[in-house]
Amino acid sequence: MNDYKIFCVSDHTGVTVEAVARSVLAQFPRFEFSPSTLPFVDSIERAHEAAARIAASPRALVFSSLTDPALREPFHRAGIALFDLFEMIAPAVGATLDASVTPSGGRTHGMSAGYEARMEAVNFALLLDDGLSPERLDGADLILIGVSRVGKTPSALYLALQYGLHAANYPLTPEDLEQHTLPAVLLDHQPKLRGLTLLPERLAAIRQARYPDSRYASLAQCRTELAAAEALFRRHGVPILDTTRMSVEEIAARLRHAA
Amino acid sequence: MNDYKIFCVSDHTGVTVEAVARSVLAQFPRFEFSPSTLPFVDSIERAHEAAARIAASPRALVFSSLTDPALREPFHRAGIALFDLFEMIAPAVGATLDASVTPSGGRTHGMSAGYEARMEAVNFALLLDDGLSPERLDGADLILIGVSRVGKTPSALYLALQYGLHAANYPLTPEDLEQHTLPAVLLDHQPKLRGLTLLPERLAAIRQARYPDSRYASLAQCRTELAAAEALFRRHGVPILDTTRMSVEEIAARLRHAA
Repeated sequence: MNDYKIFCVSDHTGVTVEAVARSVLAQFPRFEFSPSTLPFVDSIERAHEAAARIAASPRALVFSSLTDPALREPFHRAGIALFDLFEMIAPAVGATLDASVTPSGGRTHGMSAGYEARMEAVNFALLLDDGLSPERLDGADLILIGVSRVGKTPSALYLALQYGLHAANYPLTPEDLEQHTLPAVLLDHQPKLRGLTLLPERLAAIRQARYPDSRYASLAQCRTELAAAEALFRRHGVPILDTTRMSVEEIAARLRHAA
Repeated sequence: MNDYKIFCVSDHTGVTVEAVARSVLAQFPRFEFSPSTLPFVDSIERAHEAAARIAASPRALVFSSLTDPALREPFHRAGIALFDLFEMIAPAVGATLDASVTPSGGRTHGMSAGYEARMEAVNFALLLDDGLSPERLDGADLILIGVSRVGKTPSALYLALQYGLHAANYPLTPEDLEQHTLPAVLLDHQPKLRGLTLLPERLAAIRQARYPDSRYASLAQCRTELAAAEALFRRHGVPILDTTRMSVEEIAARLRHAA
């Protein structure tokens, strides 16, 4: 029963249709799937090639995002089970809007912020990584703070790449934690601060992978640092996010929507 | 006619449903939309709150990814136009699989590679950014090469965050370009090399923003460097990607699927 072969076909990157396929297929836990993605199927020739390749698989299921109906034709004609985002959703939306569909090609798939804004945001995140360039914190939309290895850098980069947000990150060192107050450079930016935390066991495992058997990676040290950091967050009214069970997408979405 | 208010409602981050909404709405170019996202609507209470908030908008259109049908109920009951990914796609998929839907919550929305693999990949990309730690190039899946400001760093970070790929990047300096051969440290890794290029006008504009009126940012200098880099790519059989009109998603997808 598990011998279905899943394909994701897109006239653009395929990122969106892959995500949809994974979400929808997760509703069928009896089945195991590992989708193959065929991106940039943006001409009739490529659609014919893709359809022929897929038709050679005995039990194929295709998720697609092909804006031009002509690109879907070869799949339909080959009798392939095709679930196309546009075909399944756009007509219903059009009926509600009382408007007809104008296929737009892959032009506007994907995310909101423009390329330049996001590249600029990545540069900002790198420039203000790990407490660097604190004199530029004025330009930050968000400042992620927390102890070493709590996940500040990847979260800041994802906020930049996905949403074009200017996310700085600033580490709380053991010395900072002994001060019982946030570093002075952060106090001017209180509304932008977001505190990241983890379960001590998780942080210890992460640190252990880098510096096995060090004091830095010990559970006791992680516990002490995290407790001190969380106390500081509370003292200064900094929203706290426990990322222990979160993906980087979830961390970024929660930080973006946090008060 | 443009007074529709669009909402994206998700029991998880909303990244996927936002992307679907933008793609589908792009098929209706007469309309202008700027979606509001309501993420983490993962309880009946939150669904009721969201539905009440949306019902207060006179012309609301809702795209949603709510795996649990009970979370969709408040929207349907309020008479809201709801286009739910699962509701619209999962039953058809189930019919093909001859299986019924088991709502899974937000568990498996999103991307494929696990959190740890992707964090590890981000660390790798940062450690091997801009030619750093060349002794670790053996561990790279891909090595992006090109002149300064051609977009290597954001592309490498996106490959890491989105796909968990180990992407290093290595700059070709004017001195490298005068050698008429790739730097020795790269030659051992020829199959992993990917050359990035841009239109000279575009590169000049990017450099201009950082160092206005410098020789570095002049069109003549950009033209010379890019031509020399492209000649090197061709001499060593390195696949070339011209990213001039590409989003970072598209660059990453093309690099991932390049031979």
